Amino acid sequence: MSKKVTKIGVLTSGGDSPGMNAAIRAVVRTGLYHNMEVFGIMRGYQGMIDDDIVPMHSRSVANIIQRGGTILKTARSKDFYTPEGRKKAYDNLKKHGIDGLVVIGGDGSFRGAQKFSNEFDIPCIGLPGTIDKDIAGSDFTIGFDTAVNTAIEAIDKIRDTADAHDRLFIIEVMGRDAGYIALHSGIATGAEHILIPETKTDIEAVVDSLEEKERRKKLVNMIVVAEGDETGGANEVLTIIKKRLPHLDTRVCILGHIQRGGSPSCLDRLIASRLGYAAVDCLIEGKHNIMIGIMNNKLHFTALDKAVKAKQKISEEWMKIVKILAS
Amino acid sequence: MSKKVTKIGVLTSGGDSPGMNAAIRAVVRTGLYHNMEVFGIMRGYQGMIDDDIVPMHSRSVANIIQRGGTILKTARSKDFYTPEGRKKAYDNLKKHGIDGLVVIGGDGSFRGAQKFSNEFDIPCIGLPGTIDKDIAGSDFTIGFDTAVNTAIEAIDKIRDTADAHDRLFIIEVMGRDAGYIALHSGIATGAEHILIPETKTDIEAVVDSLEEKERRKKLVNMIVVAEGDETGGANEVLTIIKKRLPHLDTRVCILGHIQRGGSPSCLDRLIASRLGYAAVDCLIEGKHNIMIGIMNNKLHFTALDKAVKAKQKISEEWMKIVKILAS
Amino acid sequence: MSKKVTKIGVLTSGGDSPGMNAAIRAVVRTGLYHNMEVFGIMRGYQGMIDDDIVPMHSRSVANIIQRGGTILKTARSKDFYTPEGRKKAYDNLKKHGIDGLVVIGGDGSFRGAQKFSNEFDIPCIGLPGTIDKDIAGSDFTIGFDTAVNTAIEAIDKIRDTADAHDRLFIIEVMGRDAGYIALHSGIATGAEHILIPETKTDIEAVVDSLEEKERRKKLVNMIVVAEGDETGGANEVLTIIKKRLPHLDTRVCILGHIQRGGSPSCLDRLIASRLGYAAVDCLIEGKHNIMIGIMNNKLHFTALDKAVKAKQKISEEWMKIVKILAS
Amino acid sequence: MSKKVTKIGVLTSGGDSPGMNAAIRAVVRTGLYHNMEVFGIMRGYQGMIDDDIVPMHSRSVANIIQRGGTILKTARSKDFYTPEGRKKAYDNLKKHGIDGLVVIGGDGSFRGAQKFSNEFDIPCIGLPGTIDKDIAGSDFTIGFDTAVNTAIEAIDKIRDTADAHDRLFIIEVMGRDAGYIALHSGIATGAEHILIPETKTDIEAVVDSLEEKERRKKLVNMIVVAEGDETGGANEVLTIIKKRLPHLDTRVCILGHIQRGGSPSCLDRLIASRLGYAAVDCLIEGKHNIMIGIMNNKLHFTALDKAVKAKQKISEEWMKIVKILAS
Repeated sequence: MSKKVTKIGVLTSGGDSPGMNAAIRAVVRTGLYHNMEVFGIMRGYQGMIDDDIVPMHSRSVANIIQRGGTILKTARSKDFYTPEGRKKAYDNLKKHGIDGLVVIGGDGSFRGAQKFSNEFDIPCIGLPGTIDKDIAGSDFTIGFDTAVNTAIEAIDKIRDTADAHDRLFIIEVMGRDAGYIALHSGIATGAEHILIPETKTDIEAVVDSLEEKERRKKLVNMIVVAEGDETGGANEVLTIIKKRLPHLDTRVCILGHIQRGGSPSCLDRLIASRLGYAAVDCLIEGKHNIMIGIMNNKLHFTALDKAVKAKQKISEEWMKIVKILAS
Repeated sequence: MSKKVTKIGVLTSGGDSPGMNAAIRAVVRTGLYHNMEVFGIMRGYQGMIDDDIVPMHSRSVANIIQRGGTILKTARSKDFYTPEGRKKAYDNLKKHGIDGLVVIGGDGSFRGAQKFSNEFDIPCIGLPGTIDKDIAGSDFTIGFDTAVNTAIEAIDKIRDTADAHDRLFIIEVMGRDAGYIALHSGIATGAEHILIPETKTDIEAVVDSLEEKERRKKLVNMIVVAEGDETGGANEVLTIIKKRLPHLDTRVCILGHIQRGGSPSCLDRLIASRLGYAAVDCLIEGKHNIMIGIMNNKLHFTALDKAVKAKQKISEEWMKIVKILAS
Repeated sequence: MSKKVTKIGVLTSGGDSPGMNAAIRAVVRTGLYHNMEVFGIMRGYQGMIDDDIVPMHSRSVANIIQRGGTILKTARSKDFYTPEGRKKAYDNLKKHGIDGLVVIGGDGSFRGAQKFSNEFDIPCIGLPGTIDKDIAGSDFTIGFDTAVNTAIEAIDKIRDTADAHDRLFIIEVMGRDAGYIALHSGIATGAEHILIPETKTDIEAVVDSLEEKERRKKLVNMIVVAEGDETGGANEVLTIIKKRLPHLDTRVCILGHIQRGGSPSCLDRLIASRLGYAAVDCLIEGKHNIMIGIMNNKLHFTALDKAVKAKQKISEEWMKIVKILAS
Repeated sequence: MSKKVTKIGVLTSGGDSPGMNAAIRAVVRTGLYHNMEVFGIMRGYQGMIDDDIVPMHSRSVANIIQRGGTILKTARSKDFYTPEGRKKAYDNLKKHGIDGLVVIGGDGSFRGAQKFSNEFDIPCIGLPGTIDKDIAGSDFTIGFDTAVNTAIEAIDKIRDTADAHDRLFIIEVMGRDAGYIALHSGIATGAEHILIPETKTDIEAVVDSLEEKERRKKLVNMIVVAEGDETGGANEVLTIIKKRLPHLDTRVCILGHIQRGGSPSCLDRLIASRLGYAAVDCLIEGKHNIMIGIMNNKLHFTALDKAVKAKQKISEEWMKIVKILAS
């Protein structure tokens, strides 16, 4: 039978994503509501090792639900890969009496949590916080909706200038392994081609289509490419296009890190609040070493070692819609 | 067996909502892709009666996916309530050879479509376009996500000044019959009380809680109230609070029509694109008099006479989360 | 000869405005750069009376340049109107050794500073922080540019729905004594009539013009009215219009407090930074009891008792431009 | 004595900038108000040569004041550099009876106008439309304020993630010859170093300062660099920093073309409206071959051949403020 959890730690790990603060707030306030003590662990697992651990109060999380970034900061910790690092982390948790952990991050962070909880008796609950929406076991990840809205706002701006100049823009969005940001932002901005890692990119067919459009003076084109597409990204696509269509006025725009920041969208704040609340509930119920996701609008629990990066199948239907609607 | 549909009309009806243009674009381009002729009907059913009907081309819907409002305009038509009005509308459709209709709007618009298709042999497909998310048969409605994000951006701004002055703000959002905008925007902004038509509002308990917080100097409060809450709205809530807590610095802010406009969010553009595409597919497949919604991320078909305003049960869980997280 | 100022206090007073935090940051960091001690005084003059005074460090103002509201909070203090209140405030300043004061606020705040510095030997520097841009001696006030951009974003959204429905909207913006927000936001959104306190409003002529436009089916109208216009505001204008044009679909939207909040615009952050920096310079140079403004892009000094609310003459030219461009 | 101008053409040329549509609207409506015929010339000077010239009505410019880009499109025309091209352009203008021209663009566009009006008897009025604010004879250019606000919104987002990770970001903004976007956006976001073409960049001193800050654990740094800075831009700065500080977590973000698009700010809409109105006035008064700017809030006229790219002196004071406020 699991012991009652009374002191919990919360940390953010890996790449930051908008809504992490809303999740922290939910964990802290729900913990306090259940008369737990709650500790914020700074800079992910590194803060556990460095004993950079601070008590959290209701006021600590006031006025943060709308803020991007993470007040607990985040980092990738090399030390945590070593048994010595994890032992030190455990000792620090014990020192504070922390007997439950909430980890907000991506699949790398969950692997760390899994390893840690295999070695030590601290139940860990993972919450999917990544802009890439690439975690098995959840329809949503905290930050994806904001990132994709940031992307479309930027692409809408680029379209203004693309349209004014009758230019082709190749726009690279984030997504090393997953094409969701590219797919959603591409459809939502009426991009004519969307290049993602999940599908084989026939770059010659793309250039054929551009050539054909150039002939019938169908101008203003936008191509959205995920950074992880097998072509290599926007600059590589530009090189290929330039070779065959040297006269086409073509520009590259790499949206970059603006996609990670900014005030979270309504959806991301709701998801984060719901998951943060559920995380504490799970610790109370004695659950351990699971990631909490949302599937079909219900909470969904996945063992941490199954909460891996998922290269989901992108529906054929969507790729057909892209083609028809951009015509 | 249903005849093959070859000329379709598309209209927007009732209150406008962000994403309607994205839906129009999808209907037009999907229709053209299937070699149909597509007509835009201006100002909802009134345009059918007035023969304000224009042919749509691929260019007609270029550069509108990101625009708020509706290029087809919208109106409420009294004439369409009369048999004579509907007959005239039918004659105009026939004149153009239109043999299928896509209606983007709310439950009132669907009732009109239902009545019309009962009398005449024009198959009608309804798409849920309303900021209120109050239609049975769909987890989403075109415009809701944008409206709720507009609301939270406005409330975030109000919080700045609420916080600077230690003031209580009573913020009224749209939602005559449904409290979804209030619920989502209230949770997402950390409002301390959320008053919605779906639950009984114990206004005295709200004032008790404010009084108690005033005593322990827990300042900065925000109350979000749906216009359709049984208290009557923000001004009525103010009157009640002023009576019992006259010294509290309390202000009202009614967000109003800004919630209807603005560039649609990514989610609304995707939903609108998917539904617009599906509408034409349904007409091709011989479906008629249904509303297409999305449930559990799948297309969901509801007979038009069942696609009514739904006062859905707001989960108890959410109301509990509101209370805990705002504490 | 003035003594050297070594410890300064900074406070925000009156209505909050976006950019106040940027000004606080500039005062604090410039003070520290000159080896002064800097204190933050909470809730305006009331914090002086209540001894709610905290030492400020470089970190205290990190990451606030982009935040709306004011980290020092603001309030209107009745106690400060009394000699006893001001004496108490002075005693508290002396206790901390504060020998110079920077007051960020509007004309009411400057009157308080003037009175205080007449009675006690604390030099006061005023910085114009108000969204209304109604202070003599400065072309800009901290917060105006943000407020007017917030207003136009809201009005752009309203225009979407006005256009979709062919509706008339009467939009009330802030400005009790000054019509600048109305004038600038009205021109920038193409409003057809702009009603401001600085000019006599011929409301009958406005209704005549609406009637004439209704006749020639020139629809979609927006009227922007300053809350301080002599008609009394949007609701009063509606009543008058409804009497003569009962069939016109007319709605009111009162933008309200959203105009006070939000992340400051680039211009407001620059002005605030420049003025905050200059305030400390002025204290060092022995200047006292002046407001620092910017005129013709140069710093401009006005005696605090002259830094009053200025009902500036609105150029005839602008009113003519409004009429021509909205036609 | 100059002949009365009765038919005018308006075009946008060079890089597009937000607010160009507001200027077009003002030219068209002011022209119509004075009973002129107004023609829109597509794609800058190229449209004059290709006779891509369309009559403009009041409705042609409805609902565009808030749109980015330019409805007249823009292009750089090689043909216009040749006498034959200009002759053809002139013949086309004559064919339509156009006897006055308004050119909205940058210094390159003005050189073209100057050359053209030297050869032919068409008075030309230039309006400064460029995001770079680098034209002699005007304190403002149409588009600069929007571009710089777009930049700070993007940089604010980057700061969220910079802060979460304690990372150094090198952010490149537009400005090939002028550092204004970098200067203003850098100050407004609290960047620690701002590298611009107007001042000599001591990159070694920048790295020294980073090294020193790294030693005292003063993390989170942002460097804003104008693309035209003599270091060569963000990637070049990165290379230099990496050489000396290989362990520093440093990233590059190139904002790119998002800075050109988007809905214009209030200030840009006002400037554009005022200048567009004035342009027609000037043609009526018989002025020719001047650029209209705004200096010290008054209209300012500069001979087109003097309206050149101005490398203005950046005030020493500002560079000092940057250093103090970011400390």
